[in-house]
Amino acid sequence: MVATLHVCTTCRRAGEVPEDEIRPGAALHAALEGLDCPEGLRIVPVECLSACTQGCSVALSAPGKWSYVYGRLGPADAATVLEGAALYAQSADGLVPWRARPEIFRKQSLARIPPQALTPEE
Amino acid sequence: MVATLHVCTTCRRAGEVPEDEIRPGAALHAALEGLDCPEGLRIVPVECLSACTQGCSVALSAPGKWSYVYGRLGPADAATVLEGAALYAQSADGLVPWRARPEIFRKQSLARIPPQALTPEE
Repeated sequence: MVATLHVCTTCRRAGEVPEDEIRPGAALHAALEGLDCPEGLRIVPVECLSACTQGCSVALSAPGKWSYVYGRLGPADAATVLEGAALYAQSADGLVPWRARPEIFRKQSLARIPPQALTPEE
Repeated sequence: MVATLHVCTTCRRAGEVPEDEIRPGAALHAALEGLDCPEGLRIVPVECLSACTQGCSVALSAPGKWSYVYGRLGPADAATVLEGAALYAQSADGLVPWRARPEIFRKQSLARIPPQALTPEE
């Protein structure tokens, strides 16, 4: 099952950005697209992940797995984000062992959400 | 399809809590359980939503809908959280009109994640 890395392309990175300049979120998305995409992952741009004060932000999700949101990112973090995303894509439930996670994934998690299937539907 | 309100029961609300005292997250969960649960919603306790510096936190999710995480909550917010969660449960895609959302849901969103089905699987 393919994992999705949603990238907020409207993020201003907690600052005002002139209308005619590229947004930091769009720059992060471009940096990610400029690298080899890990197997089992797809990169999808999205307008606003509602983490505006903690931007730039990305979200990792996949059917049946925990979802994660990471923040305070910039284009220079692109390779590290993909490294962590590759481990997530390979994991069974989205829970990558703590020590295996890149430092960004250990220290810049904004939130995580359990999978839908963790508890039975009523 | 039932929507899920995950409640972090281990939240310390950004403070140290003595081992023998009830955690603020557990108190929020108890306050939510003490109220009538809206139709189409279930409340599920979870250990850690990785939003520790912004606790107490809850997450709203449902198959095919946007997921949301809210933070900086306390037991006094329980009724308002359920009011917003009821609107979420009734919505088709998780997107409740801005003006209809309780103030907590407008101002204390930590992040949101698009539904799995928003973009086609490869």
